[in-house]
Amino acid sequence: MKSKGSRAERELIHMLWDTGTWAAMRSAGSGSTPLPSPDIIASNGKKILAIECKSIQDYKKYFDAEEIGQLVHFSNTFGAQAWVAVKFNHKGWFFFRVENLGMSSNGTACVDLELAQKEGKTFEELIQ
Amino acid sequence: MKSKGSRAERELIHMLWDTGTWAAMRSAGSGSTPLPSPDIIASNGKKILAIECKSIQDYKKYFDAEEIGQLVHFSNTFGAQAWVAVKFNHKGWFFFRVENLGMSSNGTACVDLELAQKEGKTFEELIQ
Repeated sequence: MKSKGSRAERELIHMLWDTGTWAAMRSAGSGSTPLPSPDIIASNGKKILAIECKSIQDYKKYFDAEEIGQLVHFSNTFGAQAWVAVKFNHKGWFFFRVENLGMSSNGTACVDLELAQKEGKTFEELIQ
Repeated sequence: MKSKGSRAERELIHMLWDTGTWAAMRSAGSGSTPLPSPDIIASNGKKILAIECKSIQDYKKYFDAEEIGQLVHFSNTFGAQAWVAVKFNHKGWFFFRVENLGMSSNGTACVDLELAQKEGKTFEELIQ
């Protein structure tokens, strides 16, 4: 899962650089430090994106409340927009502002393919 | 050397977060990818810093031209200021804009303690 997540992160980094107008950088990872850090930070000099990145094998993905909280804390301090990037097997990428994630019955943020296809932004919408 | 460099990076990340107004993130490292990436990106929502970070055991440090070029390319695309952070043994941190680095006789950017004490900015000056 870890290597698949890293692969998805690298793919998104390349998609951003390939636009020719965006710079993007992968985080060293939050494992080694208690400090908040998104998986990816990107900017075109106008809009700054802090991105938490997920590769999903299953139909549905739940997010850790602390993970989302740290993403928002980092983003607010840095001056970035907080985004969650989700890659579904065979369905590609969908992008969410934190407030557009779903909420499970136990209060955990989540996303499934149905919500992604209804509420998720495309890569082109993300970078426009 | 690598672990000492990482230790210096982590120290600087903590110094930035400890201000209470700056967010900072370490790069996953440029070793795994040909894409430009500084060691650290930091912002307080007003000023964005892309920082190449060095721990110096010797009196003098030379910089790789490609390393500096990639720092500038990343910074220009991202909309960040390009900085080089240098930590000398027992002398602490000094911060340079790229244009304030020294130039060796063979055209390589460099910094020594004398230049650092004359031209280097302090951490307080960096974040003000």
